[in-house]
Amino acid sequence: MNEREFRRYTAALRSLLNKRIATLFRSKNPRELHKAGRYVLASGGKRIRSILLLLATESVRGRVGDALDAGVAVELMHNFTLIHDDVMDHAKTRRGRPTVHVRWDLNQAILVGDVMVGFAYDILLRAPRENAQQISRLFTKGLINVCEGQALDLTLGSARHATVKDYVEMIDKKTGSLIVLSSELGGVVGGGTAKQVRALREYGRYLGRAFQLQDDLLDVVADEKRLGKAIGGDIMEGKRTFLYITTMERASNRDRRFLTKAFNHQSVQGRALVHKVQSLYHKYESIEKTRAMIEQYTAKALVKLHDLPPSRSRDMLHHLARVLASRHA
Amino acid sequence: MNEREFRRYTAALRSLLNKRIATLFRSKNPRELHKAGRYVLASGGKRIRSILLLLATESVRGRVGDALDAGVAVELMHNFTLIHDDVMDHAKTRRGRPTVHVRWDLNQAILVGDVMVGFAYDILLRAPRENAQQISRLFTKGLINVCEGQALDLTLGSARHATVKDYVEMIDKKTGSLIVLSSELGGVVGGGTAKQVRALREYGRYLGRAFQLQDDLLDVVADEKRLGKAIGGDIMEGKRTFLYITTMERASNRDRRFLTKAFNHQSVQGRALVHKVQSLYHKYESIEKTRAMIEQYTAKALVKLHDLPPSRSRDMLHHLARVLASRHA
Repeated sequence: MNEREFRRYTAALRSLLNKRIATLFRSKNPRELHKAGRYVLASGGKRIRSILLLLATESVRGRVGDALDAGVAVELMHNFTLIHDDVMDHAKTRRGRPTVHVRWDLNQAILVGDVMVGFAYDILLRAPRENAQQISRLFTKGLINVCEGQALDLTLGSARHATVKDYVEMIDKKTGSLIVLSSELGGVVGGGTAKQVRALREYGRYLGRAFQLQDDLLDVVADEKRLGKAIGGDIMEGKRTFLYITTMERASNRDRRFLTKAFNHQSVQGRALVHKVQSLYHKYESIEKTRAMIEQYTAKALVKLHDLPPSRSRDMLHHLARVLASRHA
Repeated sequence: MNEREFRRYTAALRSLLNKRIATLFRSKNPRELHKAGRYVLASGGKRIRSILLLLATESVRGRVGDALDAGVAVELMHNFTLIHDDVMDHAKTRRGRPTVHVRWDLNQAILVGDVMVGFAYDILLRAPRENAQQISRLFTKGLINVCEGQALDLTLGSARHATVKDYVEMIDKKTGSLIVLSSELGGVVGGGTAKQVRALREYGRYLGRAFQLQDDLLDVVADEKRLGKAIGGDIMEGKRTFLYITTMERASNRDRRFLTKAFNHQSVQGRALVHKVQSLYHKYESIEKTRAMIEQYTAKALVKLHDLPPSRSRDMLHHLARVLASRHA
């Protein structure tokens, strides 16, 4: 498995997915609702969750063709969360374009998100499935968890003493749930054994944590050109990332007071303040600590793959974990 | 079947449903999310959709006990729509209490609605079902239609020339979809034949129309004490109800210009203006026209019941249609 082979194969999967996605939200009525749905789905995105699902299906000897609908379903679920989260976070842009509530309005953003959940379930069970109940229940678990994760994230934002434990609980639900769903559902759709499905679920769990930690890290250390946006956004929004929490746990009283004060405003104002926060993350070696955690979780994810039969898809899942943990954007 | 028997039996069903509903949203974490969920579900409501579902199940010789989960599921779906619609309509109160976005905030209202969809699917398929796929698909059709219906309603609000056809299309989706879902799903869960399920679906369709027309009518002619709120609210909000549309279709140029102008503001200001609109509804006999439509649709609903075996539940469904079409609140 080399980099080029991985890229080529995942690009082929992405193209299959995008073709199917392009058939959605094509009704003439209600016009704006469908237009907004197309707008969101056409705005790109790496389709990581769908690709993960397809690779998981293949890794238990299932066929990609049987899993495409489920792959699209998790992508729709993911986009539903983006639309509603963007409202809650007052995000103005997404993937370089105005968010739905900016381009249209709040009502449209709420409704497009809602109906996207409907279309997700619709495509999930469009073809007859012997294990429809299990598939539907997994998907529903993902939906509930992702909503609860967002609620935890909103609470964490105003929590006085958030711990690493709180943080991990939050990201397991907010970020992890759809990654776990993709991985596990891929196994179920592919007809994997209970043991294989469990391995994929656990793989997804650790992958999700590594993924979110890398996300937190990139906001501090990324090359802005490769990231495609300015770094420091999390700090400016006062987000309790892993870096913030782990720094708070080890900082001197003085530095802790500074961070508390800086983050207790709705937003951290000004470049100077952002730099000061970043320098504290460096001072307390939180960058290294985060990198170490990412390595740990990635390693744990990779171990779980041993429960799957050796195959090219398993190698791809291996590679995927490595890629996500060292990505630049 | 007399009034007293009907009331006693539906009250017993309501009590069964409420007991099960009281077990939901009991997690400690995320605390506010579950608290808001309990708040919404505990605020009453007549549980009409759930009761309809249970009666439909019984009417095809199914057991209420097997349908309670599905009954609760449609109630959750209904409450999801209320929470999000209240945001979109800027409604301040619901069932005499502050709406979620007022009592908490916008984010909480979006999230509680979202997670309620999740819990609806969760309880829908909690018990093993042979026809899980069919059940899930029906439920999903309801979800998509109700969202599209709300989108159509928002569009209708600013449409220059809404027709009765547009109106019926909108209410079929916005109001009808969950009533059809309840009726049809009750039949499926109860193990009804394809013919019986179709009869229940059609019954629901006409019932939904009669229900919404009665809703529109009550805003003009209700006894405010029995209604529990001031009448004229639809007019003040500039809502394109059946009464508005049918009056517009038959009004003189002069009266049409007046109505257009009055409704083209975001809201119709002042009691005098509301009274003037009401007097036009009377002048063009739109009250009578609406009553006649309600009668027609109710009659059509009742005819569909002939395809069900004679039973006490079928009589109850008959009575339910009569009750809804002549209700005072």
